[in-house]
Amino acid sequence: MALAKVYVNYKQSILNPEAEAVHKALKRLGYGDIEDVKLGKYFELTIADGKSKAEMDKEINQVCDKLLANYNMENYHYELVETEAAQ
Amino acid sequence: MALAKVYVNYKQSILNPEAEAVHKALKRLGYGDIEDVKLGKYFELTIADGKSKAEMDKEINQVCDKLLANYNMENYHYELVETEAAQ
Repeated sequence: MALAKVYVNYKQSILNPEAEAVHKALKRLGYGDIEDVKLGKYFELTIADGKSKAEMDKEINQVCDKLLANYNMENYHYELVETEAAQ
Repeated sequence: MALAKVYVNYKQSILNPEAEAVHKALKRLGYGDIEDVKLGKYFELTIADGKSKAEMDKEINQVCDKLLANYNMENYHYELVETEAAQ
């Protein structure tokens, strides 16, 4: 069993109004020392046994390109963690 | 400068239709070996210098409780990373 932790964020050049709204709300609440807010999506994919690390890497990249991230606007990165039991 | 990486996920008992939809789409695309999909939010908060670790921990917990996570439905955890330059 392996767990892929996938992080999808907007590219630097893309305006993220939700992150802006959170940042402004934090300022209004008095947290002026929080200088920047980024907001993205976080996926945890549980992958069945039986694939090599290289096969899983390939699969995760395919899945991100096809479905999880919009490559025009978003970047992704991931960590692959071996787990003993299902999470 | 410190960076707080905050992960907000739905609690186990709460149905997450967006994660379900992604899971079904992955199955349709032929990725049947992906057994489970979780989907949450990922925040990166850049915090200005001048606070101790304990003060930053307190601030991040307050911010999560007040704004970033809905404690009825969501759990959060975070990592605090010291950074040299702004990210």
